[in-house]
Amino acid sequence: MDDLPGIVVTGVSGRMGQMLAREVTASGKARLVGALERPGHDWVGRDLGACMGGAALGVTVEDDPLPAFARARAVIDFTAPAATVAFAGLAAQARAVHVIGTTGLAPADLEALEAASHHAAIIRAGNMSLGVNLLAGLVRKVAAALDADWDIEVVEAHHRMKVDAPSGTALMLGEAAAEGRGIALADNMESGRHGLTGARAPGAIGFSAIRGGDIVGEHDVIFAGAGERLVLRHVATDRAIFARGALRAALWGMDQKPGQYDMVDVLGL
Amino acid sequence: MDDLPGIVVTGVSGRMGQMLAREVTASGKARLVGALERPGHDWVGRDLGACMGGAALGVTVEDDPLPAFARARAVIDFTAPAATVAFAGLAAQARAVHVIGTTGLAPADLEALEAASHHAAIIRAGNMSLGVNLLAGLVRKVAAALDADWDIEVVEAHHRMKVDAPSGTALMLGEAAAEGRGIALADNMESGRHGLTGARAPGAIGFSAIRGGDIVGEHDVIFAGAGERLVLRHVATDRAIFARGALRAALWGMDQKPGQYDMVDVLGL
Amino acid sequence: MDDLPGIVVTGVSGRMGQMLAREVTASGKARLVGALERPGHDWVGRDLGACMGGAALGVTVEDDPLPAFARARAVIDFTAPAATVAFAGLAAQARAVHVIGTTGLAPADLEALEAASHHAAIIRAGNMSLGVNLLAGLVRKVAAALDADWDIEVVEAHHRMKVDAPSGTALMLGEAAAEGRGIALADNMESGRHGLTGARAPGAIGFSAIRGGDIVGEHDVIFAGAGERLVLRHVATDRAIFARGALRAALWGMDQKPGQYDMVDVLGL
Amino acid sequence: MDDLPGIVVTGVSGRMGQMLAREVTASGKARLVGALERPGHDWVGRDLGACMGGAALGVTVEDDPLPAFARARAVIDFTAPAATVAFAGLAAQARAVHVIGTTGLAPADLEALEAASHHAAIIRAGNMSLGVNLLAGLVRKVAAALDADWDIEVVEAHHRMKVDAPSGTALMLGEAAAEGRGIALADNMESGRHGLTGARAPGAIGFSAIRGGDIVGEHDVIFAGAGERLVLRHVATDRAIFARGALRAALWGMDQKPGQYDMVDVLGL
Repeated sequence: MDDLPGIVVTGVSGRMGQMLAREVTASGKARLVGALERPGHDWVGRDLGACMGGAALGVTVEDDPLPAFARARAVIDFTAPAATVAFAGLAAQARAVHVIGTTGLAPADLEALEAASHHAAIIRAGNMSLGVNLLAGLVRKVAAALDADWDIEVVEAHHRMKVDAPSGTALMLGEAAAEGRGIALADNMESGRHGLTGARAPGAIGFSAIRGGDIVGEHDVIFAGAGERLVLRHVATDRAIFARGALRAALWGMDQKPGQYDMVDVLGL
Repeated sequence: MDDLPGIVVTGVSGRMGQMLAREVTASGKARLVGALERPGHDWVGRDLGACMGGAALGVTVEDDPLPAFARARAVIDFTAPAATVAFAGLAAQARAVHVIGTTGLAPADLEALEAASHHAAIIRAGNMSLGVNLLAGLVRKVAAALDADWDIEVVEAHHRMKVDAPSGTALMLGEAAAEGRGIALADNMESGRHGLTGARAPGAIGFSAIRGGDIVGEHDVIFAGAGERLVLRHVATDRAIFARGALRAALWGMDQKPGQYDMVDVLGL
Repeated sequence: MDDLPGIVVTGVSGRMGQMLAREVTASGKARLVGALERPGHDWVGRDLGACMGGAALGVTVEDDPLPAFARARAVIDFTAPAATVAFAGLAAQARAVHVIGTTGLAPADLEALEAASHHAAIIRAGNMSLGVNLLAGLVRKVAAALDADWDIEVVEAHHRMKVDAPSGTALMLGEAAAEGRGIALADNMESGRHGLTGARAPGAIGFSAIRGGDIVGEHDVIFAGAGERLVLRHVATDRAIFARGALRAALWGMDQKPGQYDMVDVLGL
Repeated sequence: MDDLPGIVVTGVSGRMGQMLAREVTASGKARLVGALERPGHDWVGRDLGACMGGAALGVTVEDDPLPAFARARAVIDFTAPAATVAFAGLAAQARAVHVIGTTGLAPADLEALEAASHHAAIIRAGNMSLGVNLLAGLVRKVAAALDADWDIEVVEAHHRMKVDAPSGTALMLGEAAAEGRGIALADNMESGRHGLTGARAPGAIGFSAIRGGDIVGEHDVIFAGAGERLVLRHVATDRAIFARGALRAALWGMDQKPGQYDMVDVLGL
């Protein structure tokens, strides 16, 4: 057990942070050697297991990243852009793999990550599930094989609390379709149809956003031709798949040279 | 065969007109006794069957409605508002049932139909398929049974040439949901989500419009609760269902008193 | 809090038992006043919360039903036939509502429940979700409205560990369809098609069973006509819906006279 | 128009034969130079267009294959094994491409085709749609990328008249999955689940067959993992796609050397 590689989870009190902590602990493939929260958070200084409403885990929540990172082979981080940029610098210093599920990074943030990646492996993805990353590859391939007589539509469904549309994953799938077809998504996007839209623009890539209940995430990419249709669909029913993907990325990253990677690299797709 | 009740089809050269003519002819339940086009149309004066690229039918395309209506027990009419209003007056005069699939009627048009319906039965519906009308009844019932913790979404898919969104049928289903829930659709409609939408408004009825290929028409009404979902779905694969519904309405109307009816009446739902 | 009605959960160490205990505890509508396991089970005598790997709940697991039932207004029971029959007698003695999710009850078991129901309310259902019970009502209604030209198919998907097919819920939906159509399911069932089946028998109700991954439970009832299809679909994504339904049944039963009830009664469908 | 390559259609009075004749005539890419039926058929000697209930086409139905094949660059043939074997010999003699959609060919028939293919190109496929052949390639790829923790299920839906299950296309997709995974389909097939099946066998490929109405053909290949699912789906709504695929194969074959080909070759997938 002590031989297992150590992993630190940041933002550990959040929904994703707790899920990551549980996944690492239960995996049998890594040890949780650090749990971070921001200074002043009331979990700091307490046992993580107790904070999560369960049995003690023997891991005390900390607010100082560097000593924690120094004990770890990898850091898993689903927080916010500013925190992630700071963590990237410290992980680079500690030569720890940095797995990033944070979204909404600005160009300046990405430059900071690029700099950090000269010293340690960084693996970053908007969606860490195996299924979605595999799907993106299929979409690219199908879009390349079919001509523009096949209309492409991306339909996604998420829970009622989601505040933006289309989802980041839907956009990633739309990008894959656009790449496959050799066009720019930005110039060919039809999203939010309402009213007198006119006929569908030739070559358009359409997006629809369904919102309701507690749907974890469902994505359909439809290729609609004359008399037939192909639909490539991913259904996520448990957010744990994102935690599992992150753990897999962390373990894979431990054998890589410094640099930037994504889930396609991790999964060998 | 000569005992079968006579039916006239208007706008007979259009896609729907031809389908109606074929349906009446092939039904064994009625005879096609008139086929109308506007004066000047090049089908006028020729045999309908030959015009449609097939064998002769013994029915000559005409451009004068009244004599044709006088021979008929019913008129089936999927044309445009102005023509439909004129036909309604003539059908009332001829005491013929008037089955109307025309859409986009303005309030003044509806008043004219109301006046005509004092003299003959008028049956009007935005969608004449048995399945969709049954579905609307189910949606009303489910919306009444479930509280507002169940989010309602209407998702429709149609061919690439469709110029408006949501479809008329989707709106009809949304109205049914709103009625069941006792709210006004106009005040609770979320259609065309795109960008930073914020979380779903409580009680909203959402609409999404998928466009592609030659999809005839598919409608899903989703009730999304916590941990479960009900989906009521209609798939149309052949436009003939609309013609069949119209013929059924025409035959049913022959036994009715003057007045206005819809497909729920026809189908006895 | 002390005013909340008391509920006992049987078979508390099982997956469903733990979920029921959590649901009652978290509901704010009832108190967990007893947690039962069979004599000799290693949870007996220990705090339930600790046994479930969380914080203490102040409820000690017991192995003697009668004193526990005497403290309770209702008993929720997803165990096995023999245990359920015994619990029914004791719940009747204690005048406690008995909510039964146990499946596989034989005719003799049902007679014992009937006897017990003269003294206390018994609520029994093969599937306690609101959605599925609502769906069954819709299926009955649609099957009654459509003639036998509409083929009925029930398709269900469950996790890979499920050992029988079709699911109990699929059979319940098939029964609802058969009732609506006025036929006997046993005489019209087509399940497990493979090989040279011949054409579909007119009036048949077909069943298909998909098995894979950790699918909680999905049921489609398809009515396939000429050129159109209606599909009524239920998707369960969280087993907690069954626990929630059971709690709702328990609370509802507290206001009922002795007798036998099902979820249609509880939900007022 | 006279420059267009000539094509002969066999079995021209059948549903598929008529569709092929219409597709070739309307394509603008080829000319229909022959229409064959068996000796004694009442269409022989008459104009094909009139026989099909439409306007004259200037093509007389014949019963002698060789002279017809001698005028053609390609023959499209969806008939029966014995006829197809005979046609293969004659097409080889005439150096015409032979596109074969006939199913149920026995090993001896395949040997005869192999011999014929030394003299002219033969293109043979169980399903000539672009979408299904593309889907098969995706299924092979996904099955190779995912380990056996992902359960594979093939679900197909067809009209009520279909007499066998699973469909030939479902088996083709199952074969693609088995190839991708490196196992033999015959040893891992679970089809027609009913009764006490026990848990799903690890590594099994499951099949379900839905039958109803006039469904043209729908195929889902489901990869069900823990907490997520990929579904690759093909929906055929118009049998014309099979005729279009056959025409495309015929045109493509005119540039090929003698040999045997399938739709993967034609489509360049």
